[in-house]
Amino acid sequence: MAERVAGPEIERLIQLLARLPGLGPRSARRAALHLVRKREELLGPLADAMQVARERIATCPRCGNVDTSEPCTICRDGRRDPSLLVVVETVADLWALERSGAVSGRYHVLGGTLSPLDGVGPRELNLDPLPGRIAEEGVREVVIAVNATVDGQTTAHYITDLLQGTGVKITRLAHGVPVGGELDYLDEGTLAAALRQRTAF
Amino acid sequence: MAERVAGPEIERLIQLLARLPGLGPRSARRAALHLVRKREELLGPLADAMQVARERIATCPRCGNVDTSEPCTICRDGRRDPSLLVVVETVADLWALERSGAVSGRYHVLGGTLSPLDGVGPRELNLDPLPGRIAEEGVREVVIAVNATVDGQTTAHYITDLLQGTGVKITRLAHGVPVGGELDYLDEGTLAAALRQRTAF
Repeated sequence: MAERVAGPEIERLIQLLARLPGLGPRSARRAALHLVRKREELLGPLADAMQVARERIATCPRCGNVDTSEPCTICRDGRRDPSLLVVVETVADLWALERSGAVSGRYHVLGGTLSPLDGVGPRELNLDPLPGRIAEEGVREVVIAVNATVDGQTTAHYITDLLQGTGVKITRLAHGVPVGGELDYLDEGTLAAALRQRTAF
Repeated sequence: MAERVAGPEIERLIQLLARLPGLGPRSARRAALHLVRKREELLGPLADAMQVARERIATCPRCGNVDTSEPCTICRDGRRDPSLLVVVETVADLWALERSGAVSGRYHVLGGTLSPLDGVGPRELNLDPLPGRIAEEGVREVVIAVNATVDGQTTAHYITDLLQGTGVKITRLAHGVPVGGELDYLDEGTLAAALRQRTAF
């Protein structure tokens, strides 16, 4: 902003809000005004929720998820199948898979993908504890659910090598046509994969 | 979300963030994850900033601006020209005009526009104190800087009637081509106004 239009407290709120993904300087200003107008209904509760989150959220020492309990809700859930472990890049991916309701097992969050050009090697990721978890928890299948990007596939190959000799079954997510997707808008690689991995009707 | 993927504290944070303008359920989830990942650098400071805002921000009893001081920074600023009063619909409009740096006077925030269909009459707006302010503060010119909408113009006419007999000069913002705007994309009304109000080159 060219000028300070309000007290430094509001300016600081705007600047911090602008650092949220999805909010730019202009929408941060709108959000700040909205908060200030809805002091009782929104600003107060949100300030409290953030305070609680700050104090109580921690990274799960077992899987790398973030939660307010240690180990996290998923790791503590006794109904989960301990023989199935799904390896994901980020907590966002874990949440996306949980929303699908299709994962009966637990997760292992890497915290990113191998990316030599960006200086991300195996040390920078949550890879070291993986073989140990498999042995301790009696995992029989590891689903590598990383993104279908070059870095993701590099990481998948690294994990395959890392788990060589553990006897665990290693699988990956299927490629194919997204549900509701139109063939016309899909790239050739996806279409070719969907055709190769076609299933009986 | 179909399922709770994290503790109730994180869910609550997501739900509250989703109520900010510009953030939907999906981007609120992304924002929450970002906050959780940046606990020290962003979540903590933002929680503090909101707490401070909640405790210290109030509506200026004189002009209707929101600020951490009463009267607000602008009302207390002795370098402001007391003879010029700019009437705006919302605090957002006040901030926008302040960013332009073109207002040497002070403001009067209505809190909306007259809108009989929505049940907004003169009582619902910050209109009553306006004649009194003009007399007390020695205002000589009132700039009606409301939006160029039907409701805005209705409100402008109402204010003109309200101030009849105070002897104050009433002006409004010029219509015309936005700076950097392309004629091809402007509506006929704006172009006609810009032509009517053309100035010497």
